[in-house]
Order: sequence, then structure tokens, then C-alpha cells
Amino acid sequence: MTDPLTNLVKTYHELNAAVVHELDEQPSALEFMRHVAVNRPFVVRQAIRDWPAFQKWDANYLRQVMGREEVKVAITPLGNADAVVENKKDDTLVFVEPHEIFEPFGEFLDSIQRSSFCTTLTGGHVKYAQTQNDNLRHEYASLSPDVPTDVPFARIALGQKADAINLWIGDDRSTTALHKDNYENIYCQVRGEKDFVLLSPVEMPCVNEQVLARGRYVPVPSAGAATTSDDGGDCDDSGIGELEVQLDVDAERVPVATWDPDEPEKRTTAWSHLAKPLRVTLREGDMLYLPCFWYHKVNQRVGDEGFVCAVNYWYDCSFEGSSFASHSFARDVYLAEQRRPEYPELKVGGETEGA
Amino acid sequence: MTDPLTNLVKTYHELNAAVVHELDEQPSALEFMRHVAVNRPFVVRQAIRDWPAFQKWDANYLRQVMGREEVKVAITPLGNADAVVENKKDDTLVFVEPHEIFEPFGEFLDSIQRSSFCTTLTGGHVKYAQTQNDNLRHEYASLSPDVPTDVPFARIALGQKADAINLWIGDDRSTTALHKDNYENIYCQVRGEKDFVLLSPVEMPCVNEQVLARGRYVPVPSAGAATTSDDGGDCDDSGIGELEVQLDVDAERVPVATWDPDEPEKRTTAWSHLAKPLRVTLREGDMLYLPCFWYHKVNQRVGDEGFVCAVNYWYDCSFEGSSFASHSFARDVYLAEQRRPEYPELKVGGETEGA
Repeated sequence: MTDPLTNLVKTYHELNAAVVHELDEQPSALEFMRHVAVNRPFVVRQAIRDWPAFQKWDANYLRQVMGREEVKVAITPLGNADAVVENKKDDTLVFVEPHEIFEPFGEFLDSIQRSSFCTTLTGGHVKYAQTQNDNLRHEYASLSPDVPTDVPFARIALGQKADAINLWIGDDRSTTALHKDNYENIYCQVRGEKDFVLLSPVEMPCVNEQVLARGRYVPVPSAGAATTSDDGGDCDDSGIGELEVQLDVDAERVPVATWDPDEPEKRTTAWSHLAKPLRVTLREGDMLYLPCFWYHKVNQRVGDEGFVCAVNYWYDCSFEGSSFASHSFARDVYLAEQRRPEYPELKVGGETEGA
Repeated sequence: MTDPLTNLVKTYHELNAAVVHELDEQPSALEFMRHVAVNRPFVVRQAIRDWPAFQKWDANYLRQVMGREEVKVAITPLGNADAVVENKKDDTLVFVEPHEIFEPFGEFLDSIQRSSFCTTLTGGHVKYAQTQNDNLRHEYASLSPDVPTDVPFARIALGQKADAINLWIGDDRSTTALHKDNYENIYCQVRGEKDFVLLSPVEMPCVNEQVLARGRYVPVPSAGAATTSDDGGDCDDSGIGELEVQLDVDAERVPVATWDPDEPEKRTTAWSHLAKPLRVTLREGDMLYLPCFWYHKVNQRVGDEGFVCAVNYWYDCSFEGSSFASHSFARDVYLAEQRRPEYPELKVGGETEGA
């Protein structure tokens, strides 16, 4: 008998095409609900062309509207905010959050636009505005009139208003590591492009979830503001010098997907080879429905304006029905498999071989 | 660690109230789709009061419309069509289908109406018109103008027409044993009452599914038409005498739920006690949404006209998404648990105790 987890992933793939469905226009609430019912993503090309944001958000306009308002910016050495980092001291993995600063929006946008001349090799830090705390209705409230207050088909279908609307601004170097959220997600690309890699919740056994210690990037104290890397030049304009991982020994450890679909031979489980990652590129004006509990990894490329900008709407997941319980069950079975001792084969008659 | 199957059933119940939701009126297609999305049943009280069938279907009318048309009738000794029967010869269980005859509708209805004076103890056979093969649009086509050709909210939500419309006519003594169907089911009560006992697909580990040999009730050859039970009197008007189970040794064995939620201490599994059967009674005019893959057992009581009559609409299930794969996975894990040898406890150091 094939092991149940292998059957699970294979059966799922037999019943579901390994493509992201493409729609020509926004679905009705009922059509959307059909996708929610089967927890499957779709992309709507050019869905947000009518948004004022799509028409107006160039660098000049954003600078003009946001001016010198302070915004929270994530800073990492490699564009790896909220990501798995190898702790070189003991070869363990750590889930590392970014260093965070506040700076005037204009200065932040300057850094982003300049970054097209930088690589992570030239020593510059990577900045990303990615607070995911409903920032478009708070930090970036001045910009919020340019986007709809809700996505009508989602609001009607789900019978709720958006729980959060998030703005994301960054450059080519930021990557969002593979993770999942407890939200129905409507993701809208305003400027630049994003490459999404998607894995269904059923593929949990493939992603090598590990319970990791938490850490945060912090400036190296001895280095200080003066020690800007010589190689960094204009690229490192943060004035905060070198960053290193500081472990947070008091923080509760957190389960993190450690397998990377772009490096599929590394950190594998016995099921990683069964994964069939879906890949879709969002171009300017496109909208993605990213269903609850789906794993996603995101890379991005700046557009003509020299930055990447997206807006996403989060709606609460339903925990009714069997989906959440079934996903938890697969996780339980996966964990039990990890713990099961390897017994010797049983001989007929019940005697253990070699005992 | 609690075993994963226990966690699965418990988590499901924590997230889902153990009641059948009651609606005052038929849902919109979108509202219906929300129930489909979470695979949860609901009942709509008095939903079909406007149907001509609800207004017109008394015994006289049915006799008048159907007249002497021949209909297929299931005959069983105990009202147990498609049910688990204990084979007394070797204590095994058999999945037994009913004896089937064709008879003029009027004679069938006479039998049903007379049956209120009979019990299974008085020797009379139990008749049930329950062919479940889209019979309302074929065998009972003369009656089909009295019911809608489809249930609008379901047709619109699911984007498909009904795959089958079935008519059910029987008496108090027929029971439908616990089973599940691969259909979205809209069940409408026209006359009499039905008591449904419902179990979610997640409760599969509770129902003691066993792969059984198949059989069929057949008249005992030696007895023949003349040997009507003395005790039966008017009750046994079938003229077919005693019925016995004939095994079909060539038929493929079939997985059957053998646990009965009304006898919860018999034929249990290690998980049966975790089941939380939902109970709902459909009265004349009520409609039940019975979602795909739900186990259901049904008892019934005749109304003033002396028969029970229902109409149900079957729509194909979606196998997209993770529901079907997750249910198969739970079944696989359940079967693996059944097969797993009971190893002795491992001591620290890897030595087996008692080896």
C-alpha cells in the first residue's frame, strides 16, 4: 500500500489541473464563491485598469501625496524579510524578521528607485514597505482614495468587508519566502511585476515545515552608522551599517516552511518531489485570487517607474466545514510519520526479525 | 499525542455546530453556494408548499394519474432495502439488495396504504418504490409536471441541471440504512415525515465501513406463491411467499457502513463514540440540502393519506479542490490503522520490551 500522504498529494493533483485559471474579467460573487468552494486560485488579467491608482501612481505622484510622512520600512541584507536564515554558528535554521526603521516616504522611495543600480553583492541593504497591518488605511491613508474600499465580488460572496488592505512597495531584490496566511487574498498588481509560486494546502508534507527559533536582523553595535560598506556606495544609504541576526530566545518557536520550490533539491522531505508548484506572473493591472491556507513565494521586478507596487485585500477565512480540520489532520499524520520509530519487519507469527 | 483520526473528528466538531441549520425560505444561488462551499446541510421549512405536487398528491389523484402503469417495487421482509444483513450460517455480514417486482401502480399503492395495519412481525413483506434512477422523469413521467424541472437556486449555483429526479413512495416500515451518495441532494418531503440521521464525511472512521459480499432477497423456491404466512393475512399480498438472502458470489464486494447511529454500541470502531449524528425531521412541505458524501440514515412515517412520498434532486458533486482527496486520505489512514501490527512499546535505547 502506498503511504497515505503520497496518495493524498497524488490524488489531489489527479483531480486538479496544475495551472492557475485565467479569467478575462472579474467574476460575479457567485462565480467567485465557486472558486472559494474548491479553494483554487485564479488570475484576472487587467482587472484593475480602471482604478485611479493604476492611472496615477507614478513616483512623482506618490512623492507628492505622501510627502514627508514617516513610513515603516523593513531592512534586510538580502531582501529576505520574514525568511529562513541558516545560523552559521551551529547550522540551525532561524526564522528571521527584518530590521525596521521609520523614514520619510520620499527618502524611502529614493532608495528603492536607486536600487536598480545595486545588487545584494554591492553591499546595499534591501528596503521593503510590507507592514501587512492594514497599512493602506493607516500609514498610507493619503493614498487610499485611489483604490476601491473593497473588492465587490469578494465582499458580496464572503458576506464581509475586507479585514485589511495592504500596500507593498519595494525593489527587485525583495523576495517573500514560502509561507501561508489565514486569509482569502485578492492581490492586485499596480506597478512592476510579481512572480508567484503557489502550493495548495494539501502539499503541506512537501514543504518541510520545521518549528524554528525566531530572530531579527539588528545593526551590528560596534559598527554603527559610520561603517558603511566601501563597496556599497550609493546603494547603502540606510546609514545603519552591517546587519546581523539576533536570536530572540524568549520568543515562542514558530512553524515555518523550509523547502524552497526554486531550490527543490535542498531541504526536502520524502514528499517534496510530489509537489506541483503553480507559477503565475502578475503584470501591471492584474489581480490574483490566492485562496486561504495556500503556500506562496513571491519574487518581483520593478516597472518603468523603478519600483514594484501592489495592493492586496485580506478577508477572513471560514473555518466551517472540513477543510481546516482536514489540513490539520494531514499535518498530524505527517508529524506522526516523522516520529514513528523504524521497527524491524515483522515475520509471520509475530516474531520480530533480529530480536 | 492523540491519534490523528481522533483529532480529525474532534476538530471538525469543534469548528462545526452539531445542528442542521434551519432557513425560513429558499436561499439565493449565492447563499446556497456558501453552504456547498462548507459542505454543510440545511433544512428549509415549508419550501415546497407552492408545488402542484404538494397541493394535489393524495391517494386518489396518484391512482388516477398513474392508473395501471407498471412500476418497479422493492420488496424486503423487514423494510431493509440496500442494507446490511447478518448471514446466520457463518455470522458474516452481507450487503443485501431487495427483491424487485413490477406491478400496476394502483395495486402497489393499495399495499402501502393497507400496511398501516401490518408490522414486520405479522409476516407481511415491505414494499418501497425507491428506484433512484431518475424515475420521476421515466417510470413516473405522468406525475412529473407536478414538480419543478429543477431547483432554481441549485441549478444556478452549481451551473448544471439535475442529474436525476427521484420519487420515493413507501410506508412506515421502510428504513434506508446509513450510506452516502456522490451527489448534492435536494430532498423534498411531499407526504408523511422522514427522520434523517446525518454524519459528515469526516466521521468516516466512526461508521465501521467494511467490504462486504453482495446478496439479494429472493423468494424461497420450494415455498412458491401458495405458501403465504398464516399470520400475514391481508398484510402479505405480494403472493411471493418467504424471502431469503441469496449471495451473489460473482459480484464485486462493496464497502458498506456497518455502524448504526441508532444502535451506537453495536459494531463500533475505536472512533464511533466520537460521532455526533445530526438529526432532522422533514415534515410535509420541507426541503433538506444533504451535501455530497454525507452519510445518512432515514426512517419514515406515513401521513394522513397512508403513505410517505418524497421527491429528491441529485446534482453531480465537484471533485475539484481538496475535499475528495482529503476524505480518501482519512480512509487510507483509517485502513492503515486497521492493518498496523501492535508492536511492543519501545524502550529508550531501541530495545523492544519482552523481546
